[in-house]
Amino acid sequence: MKDMVILMKQFMDKNFLLDTETAVHLYHTYAAKQPIIDYHCHISPEEIAKDRHFDNITQLWLGGDHYKWRLIRSNGVPEEEITGDATDRIKFQCFAETLEKCVGNPMYHWTHLELQRYFGYYGVLSGETAEEVWNLCNEKLKNMSVRQLILSSNVRFIGTTDDPIDTLEWHKALAEETDFPVTVAPSFRPDKAINIDKPGFVDYMERLSETVGYPIDSVADVCRAISDRLDYFKAVGCRASDHGLDFVPFLTADEHELDKIFKTAMKGKTITAQEAEQYKTALLLHCAKEYAEKDIVMQLHYNALRNPNSRMFEKLGPDTGYDVINSVFCGEKICAFLDTLEQEHHLPKTVLYSLNPSDNAMLDTILGAFQGTEAAGKLQHGSAWWFNDHKAGMEAQLTSLANLSVLGNFIGMLTDSRSFLSYTRHEYFRRILCMFIGRLVENGEYPNDEKALQKLVEGICYKNAAAYFAIEG
Amino acid sequence: MKDMVILMKQFMDKNFLLDTETAVHLYHTYAAKQPIIDYHCHISPEEIAKDRHFDNITQLWLGGDHYKWRLIRSNGVPEEEITGDATDRIKFQCFAETLEKCVGNPMYHWTHLELQRYFGYYGVLSGETAEEVWNLCNEKLKNMSVRQLILSSNVRFIGTTDDPIDTLEWHKALAEETDFPVTVAPSFRPDKAINIDKPGFVDYMERLSETVGYPIDSVADVCRAISDRLDYFKAVGCRASDHGLDFVPFLTADEHELDKIFKTAMKGKTITAQEAEQYKTALLLHCAKEYAEKDIVMQLHYNALRNPNSRMFEKLGPDTGYDVINSVFCGEKICAFLDTLEQEHHLPKTVLYSLNPSDNAMLDTILGAFQGTEAAGKLQHGSAWWFNDHKAGMEAQLTSLANLSVLGNFIGMLTDSRSFLSYTRHEYFRRILCMFIGRLVENGEYPNDEKALQKLVEGICYKNAAAYFAIEG
Amino acid sequence: MKDMVILMKQFMDKNFLLDTETAVHLYHTYAAKQPIIDYHCHISPEEIAKDRHFDNITQLWLGGDHYKWRLIRSNGVPEEEITGDATDRIKFQCFAETLEKCVGNPMYHWTHLELQRYFGYYGVLSGETAEEVWNLCNEKLKNMSVRQLILSSNVRFIGTTDDPIDTLEWHKALAEETDFPVTVAPSFRPDKAINIDKPGFVDYMERLSETVGYPIDSVADVCRAISDRLDYFKAVGCRASDHGLDFVPFLTADEHELDKIFKTAMKGKTITAQEAEQYKTALLLHCAKEYAEKDIVMQLHYNALRNPNSRMFEKLGPDTGYDVINSVFCGEKICAFLDTLEQEHHLPKTVLYSLNPSDNAMLDTILGAFQGTEAAGKLQHGSAWWFNDHKAGMEAQLTSLANLSVLGNFIGMLTDSRSFLSYTRHEYFRRILCMFIGRLVENGEYPNDEKALQKLVEGICYKNAAAYFAIEG
Repeated sequence: MKDMVILMKQFMDKNFLLDTETAVHLYHTYAAKQPIIDYHCHISPEEIAKDRHFDNITQLWLGGDHYKWRLIRSNGVPEEEITGDATDRIKFQCFAETLEKCVGNPMYHWTHLELQRYFGYYGVLSGETAEEVWNLCNEKLKNMSVRQLILSSNVRFIGTTDDPIDTLEWHKALAEETDFPVTVAPSFRPDKAINIDKPGFVDYMERLSETVGYPIDSVADVCRAISDRLDYFKAVGCRASDHGLDFVPFLTADEHELDKIFKTAMKGKTITAQEAEQYKTALLLHCAKEYAEKDIVMQLHYNALRNPNSRMFEKLGPDTGYDVINSVFCGEKICAFLDTLEQEHHLPKTVLYSLNPSDNAMLDTILGAFQGTEAAGKLQHGSAWWFNDHKAGMEAQLTSLANLSVLGNFIGMLTDSRSFLSYTRHEYFRRILCMFIGRLVENGEYPNDEKALQKLVEGICYKNAAAYFAIEG
Repeated sequence: MKDMVILMKQFMDKNFLLDTETAVHLYHTYAAKQPIIDYHCHISPEEIAKDRHFDNITQLWLGGDHYKWRLIRSNGVPEEEITGDATDRIKFQCFAETLEKCVGNPMYHWTHLELQRYFGYYGVLSGETAEEVWNLCNEKLKNMSVRQLILSSNVRFIGTTDDPIDTLEWHKALAEETDFPVTVAPSFRPDKAINIDKPGFVDYMERLSETVGYPIDSVADVCRAISDRLDYFKAVGCRASDHGLDFVPFLTADEHELDKIFKTAMKGKTITAQEAEQYKTALLLHCAKEYAEKDIVMQLHYNALRNPNSRMFEKLGPDTGYDVINSVFCGEKICAFLDTLEQEHHLPKTVLYSLNPSDNAMLDTILGAFQGTEAAGKLQHGSAWWFNDHKAGMEAQLTSLANLSVLGNFIGMLTDSRSFLSYTRHEYFRRILCMFIGRLVENGEYPNDEKALQKLVEGICYKNAAAYFAIEG
Repeated sequence: MKDMVILMKQFMDKNFLLDTETAVHLYHTYAAKQPIIDYHCHISPEEIAKDRHFDNITQLWLGGDHYKWRLIRSNGVPEEEITGDATDRIKFQCFAETLEKCVGNPMYHWTHLELQRYFGYYGVLSGETAEEVWNLCNEKLKNMSVRQLILSSNVRFIGTTDDPIDTLEWHKALAEETDFPVTVAPSFRPDKAINIDKPGFVDYMERLSETVGYPIDSVADVCRAISDRLDYFKAVGCRASDHGLDFVPFLTADEHELDKIFKTAMKGKTITAQEAEQYKTALLLHCAKEYAEKDIVMQLHYNALRNPNSRMFEKLGPDTGYDVINSVFCGEKICAFLDTLEQEHHLPKTVLYSLNPSDNAMLDTILGAFQGTEAAGKLQHGSAWWFNDHKAGMEAQLTSLANLSVLGNFIGMLTDSRSFLSYTRHEYFRRILCMFIGRLVENGEYPNDEKALQKLVEGICYKNAAAYFAIEG
């Protein structure tokens, strides 16, 4: 018997998170070298097209990152110094002073990975070093731009998130460029057409009507407009859709009832929760059938409770770091929804994500009940998402997926990010993946077979997603 | 201070999963030597009585194993090559090619444990080695039979799963044999008499009536028939019952209401979900009282959502690999059910199982509220079940049970299997148990006291179940 | 690369649970030396004032500890020998014999920590050594008392749990003493005024009325009485309140409706579950506003299902070891409750505890949505509580809190105990905390920065709670 060496490491050195020799080998030999497919993010195609520059590190880091805002608030810092009128230097200081208390938080690792990879800074950011880091980063930023960040990260494909009424002008502009070898594709996110019970629905319908050029007076009209816009997206390179749901709805109604619900809502009148669910079910089923038809991947995200702090919502709006994990257990509805599609042979390739980690095992078993021959791993459990996007969350997702499905078919990581520095999260994921597989090998749970391991690692890091989203090599 | 050596192992060698010296010692000295009590499985007593032989490894492995079917489907393989008309050799190839992608899946371990223990094959099954393994296994199968597999696994007791109307002819035949020193006892599973809301209930009542020889026109008649058949089962050696429940029901009704519900159902009319729960509650309470009276262990399984894929259910029927974990949180109902029995001093020895691992902690605390003097550990939390029957799931169940109850009284493993090769799952469990206890010892959390450790390990592997089910040594 | 040494330890030696050199260093250098703030417990101020002595170890250990009772019952021991008329020596024997089966249970560690720290016994308690331990402990108890136990544990602050109608005479008596340098402060627990649907409500209202000296005829009167008693508590040194809730209620009603509900209940008539929730919501909101006003920390505990075994409840009453974990997922209600307070700038410092560990991640995200500038970590997720108060539960709470919030602001451990020996649970927590942080450091996930680590460890062990509860050093 030989010892399995658990390697003690310096703070975030080159073998960060790689705790066996096998993990070190797999990461540096295979994982690190794979290009990045970031099939789901929230970055701006306009900023890519215009190749935006940033004045200082606060603008880049703290301009829109609600993860960071949330942490700084948890340190008792007033909003003024987070999203308010304080100077960028003060805001940076508040972040640095918060960070040193964040032992065990993924922000600690993301921040230092970004400092190392993009700014060559291998020290530790804290209140004391904030001045040094501020100066260093701002100096380097003078010669950095969005495209450089993307290219230096070895990104091959970016899937943005776009509303059906978007003109996609920036995607088209980028597609016509010859000197930027990265595919920037739109993803179809029709939440506003589905959220009949949220403010703004009536206005949105009017804008959708303008976009498609015909009146929208019935649910059938909404569906037609969705289909038309999806055709347009597909023509511009769209491979995936995305739905942000409170929970996966499933409550059926006939066309007559649906139209009544739609008309009530269009008059600005209140509809019941049940009616809203009926409309959403109909729309989501329509979308799914269209995705199946047009080979668009369907992504379903649920179990976020959004904007619970209404005082701050009024002040700052959505996506500002106030959302929480919800506990809606809708496994039966997910099954009924997928079953309806499966019965009609209209189930598209689907990626399921829940914000509540208690759903992991349930989701992994749902996959197994609805697989198909369209892909090895037609149904996927998305990578540990948002509040679960840390070492423990990724390990939990990988462990559950491996136990209950075929890990070798996993399409792997996405950033879900608004920042151009977040590609280091792929590195973070790949290190954890290699840690996970390395332990299994060194613990005698999987053979130390170089070829098989290479296939697994390259597949999960890059090749599976390339095949799943039909991205050319 | 001394290092706790975490042993690096070759792929599935003799110290597989044993990661401390203490674990190695406990497993080989005590755990491995204990006989097997497989108190809950789904194998056929007829096949034991007839000592069935198998033509090839596909027949034995892929003939009825929905765990394997599910995995192969997750690899995008068409049904034709899983449960369809493809040749056995092709089906075996599809399985082998899927398996190499199943890093971290318990199927990887189960398969190789079976290849090692029953076929003497210590290599790795993959697409490349499939031909070699196919030939080797089929050659060995010529001289293998069901009884040989059971005897070579050191099995002492088998509890099958049987419908109340079963004649138990094969159990009786086996009991009369003198040259097969394994007790094969029936377990009482009256699901069909309880599932008033499932298709087939009316037919089943007719068959039950024929079996007992009197008409069944009321709930009292159903209860009488249940009691009579339980007497019959008891006479043939039954020690345990089993109930597969969507959730543990608890909604009471008086006899008049119950009869009305029963009569409605018997006319083939639809009853409400509430009515179904009322009938089920009454039946389950009746069963439990009878179990308490006759010293039959009650097993309650819940939180499976069965047959969600209706297209495949129509094609292949139940138990074909399409079930999923549900999230019905019925702790209050479980307590109310147990409380009703406890108030009347009619609570039998009970084993609780939930398919949702989020229920672990809740179940472990429910045990503690309803213990009694009939046994050390009268209430039990069953071993990690079905989708949780893997290293992580077993560790989670053991950890929670140890934290919240008395692990030393645990009755341990069962296979829940349809296969005669599954006895290796007891080995799998025992290795994980020794890993778990070994770590506690080497971490200074439990004394390194040989006698105490022997008692714990032998108890959980064999002696506790022997006492709990009154199996003679 | 250097090995991370995982230290093998003798049974519960001085480095118990400290599995890295960093953990050993942090624990002995910083954690062990911090005074104890036990801001939430259930010990009797009268017993402190009177400096109670104990006749024997059974009286001290088994007189009121429902954790131990529950375990002994799980070993099949009759109630007679647990809480009944058996001799103290027999009861002790039953406990010792149960304990040796409790591998992996925190009781094993708590018991031996107490034997080591208070009785100087470094052996192992079992059926065989019970006589020796009985004699040794009883001999030492002759010279021990409540105050000695408190002082020798380096306790600086004790927060008891007290009903609003309590006279607080013992707190006042203790405050006047000059030779006992420990602050014993009352905590405000108005459960009986809130639980309108529980037996005894009408009687309690009468007693509350007598206490405040005016009639209580409306919800406004109840609120006024609550406020008056809180003023009284505050004057006697109260810094915290505590609410034991089935779930966090949130269902609003106007004053007229509330009074109707109150009057119905006061007539001894049944109110609906909805009405009870409306009354509770109103009361809880009132309490919270008062806490915000008077700078009292609000503690909310939920997800316990109490007294499910009605036969034993009738025999032994509440808090006798029969409660269980519930699965009420009330995240939306928690948010609505906090939001209502936040809108009016009346959200006090709040500590959330759920008995169901599945709530960890949800709670940790709720914190982040309602932080404020009143404290660094105004909203807290309470330390692993009751059934989660073990190594795995504490690791899970720390991991989730670290991932989703700022661990450096955590106010740390409390005993929640009825025993004067339970201060060792702070030691238990501190060892696990140092283990947790030590692993992060040695794994390269946090810098090995002495000053930063000292600050983190001293903060979580003592200083954060001192600041949060405004306890002078």
